[in-house]
This record gives sequence, structure tokens and C-alpha cells, in this order.
Amino acid sequence: MDFGTEFKPLTVQPQEIEGLSFQMITAELGVHDFTAQQYPVVQRIIHASADFELGRGLVFHPQAIEAGIAAILAGKPIVADVRMIEAGIAKARIHQYGGDVRVHISDPDVMEEAKALGVTRAIIAMRKACAEAPGGIFVIGNAPTALLELIRLVKEGAAQPGLVIGMPVGFVSAAESKDELRKLDIPYISNIGRKGGSTVVVAAVNALSLLAVRHAAEQQ
Amino acid sequence: MDFGTEFKPLTVQPQEIEGLSFQMITAELGVHDFTAQQYPVVQRIIHASADFELGRGLVFHPQAIEAGIAAILAGKPIVADVRMIEAGIAKARIHQYGGDVRVHISDPDVMEEAKALGVTRAIIAMRKACAEAPGGIFVIGNAPTALLELIRLVKEGAAQPGLVIGMPVGFVSAAESKDELRKLDIPYISNIGRKGGSTVVVAAVNALSLLAVRHAAEQQ
Repeated sequence: MDFGTEFKPLTVQPQEIEGLSFQMITAELGVHDFTAQQYPVVQRIIHASADFELGRGLVFHPQAIEAGIAAILAGKPIVADVRMIEAGIAKARIHQYGGDVRVHISDPDVMEEAKALGVTRAIIAMRKACAEAPGGIFVIGNAPTALLELIRLVKEGAAQPGLVIGMPVGFVSAAESKDELRKLDIPYISNIGRKGGSTVVVAAVNALSLLAVRHAAEQQ
Repeated sequence: MDFGTEFKPLTVQPQEIEGLSFQMITAELGVHDFTAQQYPVVQRIIHASADFELGRGLVFHPQAIEAGIAAILAGKPIVADVRMIEAGIAKARIHQYGGDVRVHISDPDVMEEAKALGVTRAIIAMRKACAEAPGGIFVIGNAPTALLELIRLVKEGAAQPGLVIGMPVGFVSAAESKDELRKLDIPYISNIGRKGGSTVVVAAVNALSLLAVRHAAEQQ
């Protein structure tokens, strides 16, 4: 979001708007238990949702931020469950390290296999991604079945995600799938409850890629 | 979202999942003032956000649903402020009546003119859309400047939107831009407060196109 100079009711510039929003978020969130490493992700998710309840419900595996930054800098793929997430991710920051963003839900082979096996496309798309993108960042904002299949594959040793951003939204199985994710000892970013969705997980990915760029700059 | 038969923890089918979710929403929302025409949009927005506060804060111009259905059936364009919205809209239901979904934020002429005039791309993209898509459905989930520019053009008589779905999210100007929208006597769907975003406005458009399909079937 950026704001022009001609526009009368606003007298502040784009960067100032974001800075002002972030100050408001910090003031309104108040005391919290997030680490300094985690907080930029929390802040950007609240910025994208204007939802403090959702922000306060975020849960980070202790290695989540470090693992996410490492995966981005290593050019690992980012796998999303739906196209909206792909559209929202700031792709230039991913591409510059050799990574890409993938969505398999409409791949012809996925559609064919799902039909043949009588299971959902979300499940087959997740199997394909686990086979093709070990070490990748798995971003699930919509389908609880995708997250539950990923958890199953991790337990069976058939998937080695670098990071799981698991925040499907909904009334049936969404909260439950996140409860299962939080039992795993692998890097994850998730939240407690029904909320989540494409804009929320996109905010998490974009916050991580900004951290990755900063981390890379500090190493030089 | 759909659920397969192989997947053990779920014993219900896709349509049942959606039906079950909608029942839960109706039960949990309880008493409300939405009309029978408006309620399917409210329900789908809560389904997409799991946020009853947001759902309860929705505000409909009295002609909003009728105008939205008419615009879709007349094949009017849908103009969105960002690509994520375009990615999320169920486009087959729009295309079948001759409509399309447009996003001008990255058009070369928009970028050029924004730079030349020293204003934001969101503003120039909105001017372009107003010139090219009279009677269209304007869907703004992100940039308050886009909504404020649209309101300005409507007041000046330079824009005749068929329907405005105005729900930008954020901490600076988002709520205020919606307060301005609700002062206009044109068809709009909006909400009170800071919340909103791409997934929410996509849910509104997809609910409307389902209503349009049903309306068309009933006319036959």
C-alpha cells in the first residue's frame, strides 16, 4: 500500500504510513511473549488482518524464524495450497535467492490422480509437493486436509519441510489440524483456533523474506 | 475446500462440510438484522474469515445485492485493487455472463502516469477503471486511497459503479474511507472498522455470483 502526495486527507508518505501502523500495533498489542525474532511476523500479520485476537493466538516453533530465513536464502521452493497465496507473495525477494512459489492444486496430473484414487486434490497436491520440494516452505491457509496430509507424511518420514506455515481458516477441522501441527517437533508457524487464511499466511511469508534480506545484508 | 473419502478423521463429504459450516455460522451468529437477500453474503464472509465481529460489522446499501446480481448477469467487469483478489474470484461464474476480472495496478500506463503525476498507482488505477468500466463492480480490499479516489470520482460524477465492495484493511485511513463510502447513496457492501482484506471481498464476490446463477436459473 502506498499513498501519494496529491491525495489531500493524507499528509504522510507511504513509509510513514507503514511505520505509523506498526507503532499503533505495538502500542495496542501491549505486553506479549513473542521473541524479538518472532515479533516482525506477528506485527505484519496484525497489519494485514487488523486482528489482535488472531495476532495473540500465533504460535511459533522455537526454530521457525531461523528455519524460514535459511530456507529462503537457500532458494528452497515455497509451496502454497491455493493460487491466492501465490498472487500475494512478494516474489522478487524469493526469486533473488533462486526460490520460486508453487501451487499444485490445478496440475493436470494432480487432478487425474485425485479422481483415480477418489481423494481430494488438496491431498494429492500435498503429496506431489512433498516429493518435489524437500526442505521447502509449506504454506497452508485454506485446506485443513492439506495440512493434515502434510502432518501424516511428516510422521511417516515421507516429508521434510524446512518450515510449515499452517493456518487454514474454517469451522470444520481447521482448528483441529493446527492442534495436530503443534504436536510436531518441526519448524512451524501456526495459530490457535479457526482463524487464518490466504492474507494471513502471505503476511507471514512476506515478513520472513524481509527478515531474510536483512539477514543476508548483515552477513556481508 | 473439499474432503476425500480416503482421509480417515473426516467422515463427511465436501458439500456436507460446507453445509455443516454454514449451520454452525447461523447458530453462532444468532439474532441479526440482515435481510434474507444479504445473509448469504454475510455467511460466506464469516465462512472465509471465521470472524463474527467482522460479519456483524457488515453494512449493505439497500440496493446492494440486487445491483450486484444485475451487474454480474449483464456481464459488467469486476475491478479489483490487487491481484490476490483476482486470483480468488470464481471466474467461471463471471465469464459465463460475459464479464471479466480486471486489476490495473501494474499496467504500464498506470505506472507511468502515477510517476509523472507524483500520485499513487492505486489512485491512477482507479481513475482508469472508472473510465473503462462504468456499471462495473469495484472491489477494494486493500488500498484506502483507491476507495477514497473512487468516492471522489463518484461525487464529481466521473464514476458510475454498479456496486462498490469497499473493505480495505488497515490502521491508517481504512476505517475512515469506509465511513465516507457509507455516506454515498450508491449500491455498496462495506463494514465498520479496520478489518477487511482480499479474502473477505473475494467471499463477497463469490457469494454474489452464486446468487446471480440462482437468480438466472429461477428466471428460466
